[in-house]
Amino acid sequence: MHWAIILAGGAGTRFWPLSSPTRPKQLLPLAGTSSSAEATVARLEGLIPRERILVVTGPALAEPLRAHLELPPANLLVEPRAASTGPALAWGTQEAHRRDPDATVLALHADWHIPDPAPFRAAAAAALALADAGEFLVTVGVTPSRVETGYGYLIPGEPVADTGFRVHRFVEKPDAETAASLLAEGALWNSGLFAWRARTLLAEIDRHTPEVAPWLPRLAANDPEGFFRQVTPVSIDVGLLERSPAVVGIRGHFAWDDIGNWEALSRVRPHDPAGNVTVGPVAAIDAGDCIIWSDGIPIVASGVRDLVIVAANGRLLVLARERAADLKQTLDQLPPAIRNLPA
Amino acid sequence: MHWAIILAGGAGTRFWPLSSPTRPKQLLPLAGTSSSAEATVARLEGLIPRERILVVTGPALAEPLRAHLELPPANLLVEPRAASTGPALAWGTQEAHRRDPDATVLALHADWHIPDPAPFRAAAAAALALADAGEFLVTVGVTPSRVETGYGYLIPGEPVADTGFRVHRFVEKPDAETAASLLAEGALWNSGLFAWRARTLLAEIDRHTPEVAPWLPRLAANDPEGFFRQVTPVSIDVGLLERSPAVVGIRGHFAWDDIGNWEALSRVRPHDPAGNVTVGPVAAIDAGDCIIWSDGIPIVASGVRDLVIVAANGRLLVLARERAADLKQTLDQLPPAIRNLPA
Repeated sequence: MHWAIILAGGAGTRFWPLSSPTRPKQLLPLAGTSSSAEATVARLEGLIPRERILVVTGPALAEPLRAHLELPPANLLVEPRAASTGPALAWGTQEAHRRDPDATVLALHADWHIPDPAPFRAAAAAALALADAGEFLVTVGVTPSRVETGYGYLIPGEPVADTGFRVHRFVEKPDAETAASLLAEGALWNSGLFAWRARTLLAEIDRHTPEVAPWLPRLAANDPEGFFRQVTPVSIDVGLLERSPAVVGIRGHFAWDDIGNWEALSRVRPHDPAGNVTVGPVAAIDAGDCIIWSDGIPIVASGVRDLVIVAANGRLLVLARERAADLKQTLDQLPPAIRNLPA
Repeated sequence: MHWAIILAGGAGTRFWPLSSPTRPKQLLPLAGTSSSAEATVARLEGLIPRERILVVTGPALAEPLRAHLELPPANLLVEPRAASTGPALAWGTQEAHRRDPDATVLALHADWHIPDPAPFRAAAAAALALADAGEFLVTVGVTPSRVETGYGYLIPGEPVADTGFRVHRFVEKPDAETAASLLAEGALWNSGLFAWRARTLLAEIDRHTPEVAPWLPRLAANDPEGFFRQVTPVSIDVGLLERSPAVVGIRGHFAWDDIGNWEALSRVRPHDPAGNVTVGPVAAIDAGDCIIWSDGIPIVASGVRDLVIVAANGRLLVLARERAADLKQTLDQLPPAIRNLPA
């Protein structure tokens, strides 16, 4: 049967001061009225039933997600520590396998913005079908819509099994010039939407991922504590996909945004004629290309351009828009009394 | 005897959202720990005793000023409506004259920042001495320290009575080019620091100020209500000083700032090496030449330049610094729910 593993991690830094460790971006209505975590579950409707959706998350998020998502409590897998996507997907896949030895898994993230679910579902169904058909680790490459330095890319190689292709190369977060030439040579965004038979993934990890493989028996023995105590953090991309010959790509033609930082709101929310995105009680006067969010306190922005202005959780952030991607570095320089948000 | 008339009016718009009609800038510790109104009274110490200091203000400010300044309650003159400086000074002067027929009056404003009181007192004493010596309306021209388009200027003419000079011409708020050439020809800032015998001012108004003169008898009859109901609003500069041959200027050599808007804080407050003036819990990271004021909510400014950022009274303002002088126009465009501050 088909299962989904939704990764819902994150330190809650990229949308500070709106986000926090217990209110990370996937629980915030950044792109609209529902959170991306809710939208992620809803988007799977008709494809995978809720009782076969597993969510891997951390201790800070477990309770908010339990309250937020209508899933069986046992489907929330709470990692004792964050160890990147490799161990998280190993656990989720093992858990699906434990409940259903013939499980085929769709892996995705809780923080994506996908405005139109239909082509996403089509791509997910195609990925699952291809995974069902062979010993493949299927990765969905999304047709890029812009030069983007915040994403990873994959470059398609020779065709495989009708719908798929070998991945010629992965490129992690390129600079703008490299990104532009990647687009020119037909590279796709490495979205993180994967599909595999549970058995295949576990076998491939066993072969290629020494950071994780020795402790897979702990998962099989239903001892995630022991597994996470010993495993070495590694991403699924570096730890497996860049190493395994079982990797096969397929193309996904759907609008996709991982809402990586405040800047992303300019893509996923409507803006006024001057290019301002405003949420909450905001007056933008002779302002242009600003992203302004208030959770209550009225904001007046006048004569300014290219700023991110956020009032939330008793903090106020005024950030050059070009710095949105580096917000973490700014936060690292803050005294704890300012950085740490009220509970 | 010598009397002081302190004008303490103002709509409280220039330092929004910190200032408001009942908390205008002269009651705020903009330049330091005491308000400019307190500092104005303190600065007169040794020159004019408190019982001879009159304050002319409006209804919204009467109570805050009464609580704020240690003055006899009867020395607060509350205008029933704002009618510019001409009627205000006519009333204050008439009141001094009523209490002391030989009064000589020093007129000044409650919102000045004068870091060093000694040279100010010397200039005020010289102005009073000159006023005592003849039928003069003495205006103190302050030596300019920069090209400033927000002030009025006066151009000295031929000498009068040792220390004084005829005023060749008044120039109201020039553009930057005109201001620069005014500096080159030795113009002085028209500070609004005046001195006159009460009798002289009332006689000169009677001769030259038809907007006010017909209703002076109402003041003499101690009926300020009737006076303000009928008087035509006019500034003392336009209504009298630009018309009367009794005007004499003297030079004042003291640092003087009327703290006209948020921008002025960069002159009257210390700044960090990057040129930021910060008040309250503020973290300025890779920020430059910003003026950042918080009355409580922590502010983080990162990667920005030349901004005024103010969190006060439940409002947040982010303003291009070059717009600080035009804040009123911004406020005029705000919906009342944002503009009007909580009481």
